[in-house]
Amino acid sequence: MHLTQPIRRSAQTAPQMTATISGSRQQTFAQLEQRIAQLAGALQQLQVQTGDRVAILALNSDRYFEYQFAVPWAGAVMVPLNIRWSVAENLYSLDDSGSSVLLADDYFAATAQQIMAQSNSLKHCIYMGDGDTPEGMLHYETLLAAAAPVADAGRGYDDLLGIFYTGGTTGFPKGVMISHTNFYTSSISAACGLDFNTQGSRYLHAAPMFHMADLAMSFAATISGNSHVFIPAFQPQAVVDAIAEHQVTDLLLVPTMVSMMLEQGVFATADVSSLRKLIYGASPMPQGTLRDAMAALPGVAFYQAYGQTELAPMISILRPEYHVFEGPMAGKLCSAGQAGSIIELRIADEQGNTVPQGTVGQVVVSGPNAMQGYWNRPEQTAETLIEGWVYTGDAGYLDEDGFLFLVDWVKDMIISGGENVFSAEVESAVTTHPAVHEVAVIGIPSKEWGEAVHAIVRLKPGEEASEQDIIDSCREVVAGYKCPRSIEFREQPFPITGAGKLRKMDLRKPYWDGYDRAVN
Amino acid sequence: MHLTQPIRRSAQTAPQMTATISGSRQQTFAQLEQRIAQLAGALQQLQVQTGDRVAILALNSDRYFEYQFAVPWAGAVMVPLNIRWSVAENLYSLDDSGSSVLLADDYFAATAQQIMAQSNSLKHCIYMGDGDTPEGMLHYETLLAAAAPVADAGRGYDDLLGIFYTGGTTGFPKGVMISHTNFYTSSISAACGLDFNTQGSRYLHAAPMFHMADLAMSFAATISGNSHVFIPAFQPQAVVDAIAEHQVTDLLLVPTMVSMMLEQGVFATADVSSLRKLIYGASPMPQGTLRDAMAALPGVAFYQAYGQTELAPMISILRPEYHVFEGPMAGKLCSAGQAGSIIELRIADEQGNTVPQGTVGQVVVSGPNAMQGYWNRPEQTAETLIEGWVYTGDAGYLDEDGFLFLVDWVKDMIISGGENVFSAEVESAVTTHPAVHEVAVIGIPSKEWGEAVHAIVRLKPGEEASEQDIIDSCREVVAGYKCPRSIEFREQPFPITGAGKLRKMDLRKPYWDGYDRAVN
Repeated sequence: MHLTQPIRRSAQTAPQMTATISGSRQQTFAQLEQRIAQLAGALQQLQVQTGDRVAILALNSDRYFEYQFAVPWAGAVMVPLNIRWSVAENLYSLDDSGSSVLLADDYFAATAQQIMAQSNSLKHCIYMGDGDTPEGMLHYETLLAAAAPVADAGRGYDDLLGIFYTGGTTGFPKGVMISHTNFYTSSISAACGLDFNTQGSRYLHAAPMFHMADLAMSFAATISGNSHVFIPAFQPQAVVDAIAEHQVTDLLLVPTMVSMMLEQGVFATADVSSLRKLIYGASPMPQGTLRDAMAALPGVAFYQAYGQTELAPMISILRPEYHVFEGPMAGKLCSAGQAGSIIELRIADEQGNTVPQGTVGQVVVSGPNAMQGYWNRPEQTAETLIEGWVYTGDAGYLDEDGFLFLVDWVKDMIISGGENVFSAEVESAVTTHPAVHEVAVIGIPSKEWGEAVHAIVRLKPGEEASEQDIIDSCREVVAGYKCPRSIEFREQPFPITGAGKLRKMDLRKPYWDGYDRAVN
Repeated sequence: MHLTQPIRRSAQTAPQMTATISGSRQQTFAQLEQRIAQLAGALQQLQVQTGDRVAILALNSDRYFEYQFAVPWAGAVMVPLNIRWSVAENLYSLDDSGSSVLLADDYFAATAQQIMAQSNSLKHCIYMGDGDTPEGMLHYETLLAAAAPVADAGRGYDDLLGIFYTGGTTGFPKGVMISHTNFYTSSISAACGLDFNTQGSRYLHAAPMFHMADLAMSFAATISGNSHVFIPAFQPQAVVDAIAEHQVTDLLLVPTMVSMMLEQGVFATADVSSLRKLIYGASPMPQGTLRDAMAALPGVAFYQAYGQTELAPMISILRPEYHVFEGPMAGKLCSAGQAGSIIELRIADEQGNTVPQGTVGQVVVSGPNAMQGYWNRPEQTAETLIEGWVYTGDAGYLDEDGFLFLVDWVKDMIISGGENVFSAEVESAVTTHPAVHEVAVIGIPSKEWGEAVHAIVRLKPGEEASEQDIIDSCREVVAGYKCPRSIEFREQPFPITGAGKLRKMDLRKPYWDGYDRAVN
């Protein structure tokens, strides 16, 4: 299990097939293999040694893709920095990992210069853009053209593939250590469970490439011999334009991106008939959004993938046949699906013991994809990775068919009148009202209930609904104590994390000033 | 990567689903998991310790399937004996592996008693049948009923999963050591490449379960959460009866089995409409046979899988889209397909160096599925497994799209007038004549040519064709020097090996009496 193996395989089985399409650039697998071997040579000429860390801070492109394979080809370890983080967070991650080289594109060249000025570990900065090379940086194409291709260093199996920083929104980032086996087994399991094995498929990199979700889909597509199309960053019109122009078949989005595309109505005006698969992840899709998306994309198979960086990232999959609102397969739509093929999944109580089916507890996962640990953080590793099991921090329960119902991050659970209320369930109920475009449900301080269920709602353009309308429609779906006590309407988009998750902490903050909340 | 993991996963995700159907017995995944844990407990009570070997000699059944999982669950190593081998060969394998327990069914109970009387390592013999327990044997169901279920011993990854004896027809059997990682990665790659991930699929065990081909398909189906149907042994009518009765969807056969089914016309008289997938392997299917099979089974997807026990067994796959006789995908039908997703495959000269594309050499394969070596045979291991590459002993070349054309076992190559003639190519050409049912092409001694191309032909019932008819039709397909110089018609079936391969050595023998052949 070597990350670089499928590149050689595709160069052998489909040398003249289009490997990457990025803006006006296209290349075949034979060319891609050659460029990866040259970039690896260039890195070695910069004194990158076996196990050295090489970071990147860039928007999506074919060069980002080349980086992902050239780094292990050279014998090194990848460190993809978060494009939504502050300079301080990325500087921390870069120095914590001890990265000696940083690649940056036009968008991040200035940030890279700032980081370089302050970093303790950085020795070289490579400019991946198309303009003039900024001062103090080396030019990607110049380096590559000057380098001879080198033989693959042979990294694989338990060798470290990359350090993936996570948790930047809730304290100092932690570097998740992922081996080749971790990532390879996660990806091949994803390739199976997400039916990636289709000749002539084209995967669109619309979600950010630094994130494990895109990386895993990307590698699943690569193992399956598929082509790759890149847009610099998610933007609804750019997504449908790329689909139409390049006959994209496979796409990964987070639910908030799907919402934005529906809001802007781009599916209706573009030719997206080539699209066969929409994978969504990071959080469950509210039922109303899913219903609208399925109506806008008839013939597209929907898959939900639930994962976590610590699991490289495969945990579970909800397959297309469960994306139905009626019939024997219905009722699983609010779940995160069933354990991926390589996964052992259980629900544990606070002592780590497995709880009975139907009981809420912590999602605990084991498999060949379970991380090696946190970089230089043995204590946090020991808290999270116990006897091969990753304690995800997510709360959930398993139903009688082994479907995992995620009932929120523990800290997003609302305790109202002594009852546990899971905001995801309430959000799903609120979106069944046809006028609702998007909703976030949080707990706010209440003298009567401790916390009261509160919904922040964005309506669809031109639609109207009163607070009472929405509460009434909600009551038809869930128990009364779970229904929002109050609703706030707003027009501006919700704050989201780099991974596209709602930043509930930010939404809660104004309500909790002057109060204590157990977790925030 | 633990062989037992998907059993727990299926017991979690589909506890009430039918796991196995064997004769009149059926059980769910919840029941199967329980019985496996009990059988593991029974083995431990027989003093089976971690790493001990447990052998089996039996026809196909649900109990064979339970054995495959209970042995690693107990911490032990499986040793499936070859049902077509002599007592001497199996006794050798059993003692060579040092197996302490042997399981045998009704069909092999007497053989097991013979083996037990002579074995140096055997301590217990378990009778898996339904009659009275033979003398000196323990009863499978009695042991199981008396045993408490035990926790999984946790064997996985690089732990030895099984010792698989091979090569019995050409000298002393060698025990191929396969780890959990070897087998798991081979199977998940097969599951992907063979599109195994279909809800509600049912795999029919018609090929013998001792063989790695069935074991790999079986585990691919198990990872994918599919059900299993068993018939004791391949028999054309039994196969179609099982398909019709149990709505079988997936089937593995070797080409000679497909020939037999066509010959008996069983596809035409039975309801095989549930069948979706036919995987064939062990050898390429002659074009004429394939054409007839595809005509007899419209709507069924054909896959060719090429492998070897030493690779657990995945090497390459020819996918359904290449099973066509016309159009841009045609022309690959005589190949063994392209490298499986986890595989690095190259063609090497006698020094082990990679030869140019299109050049014939030895097929050399690397991947996480490459065996650990031969049991207790360091010298033979060193000859076959060199720096992670398995030297398969098969001759072949890669075309410009990375399709592997197997041009025969080196010893089956015919050298005629200084030209290399690959018998598989000639066989494929001969079967294009509509009257030909089956053919074997061999080299026979010739004063003029050194070796002459000779075909042994079985015609379809009621069909007629002369020697010249067949040679003429052959000449339309391949070059003149490759066409048979002589044809012998015969009615009785060809001799085959335990794996369903033609025993060409036996066919050549009468012609070579009194002559020397370099390899035989």
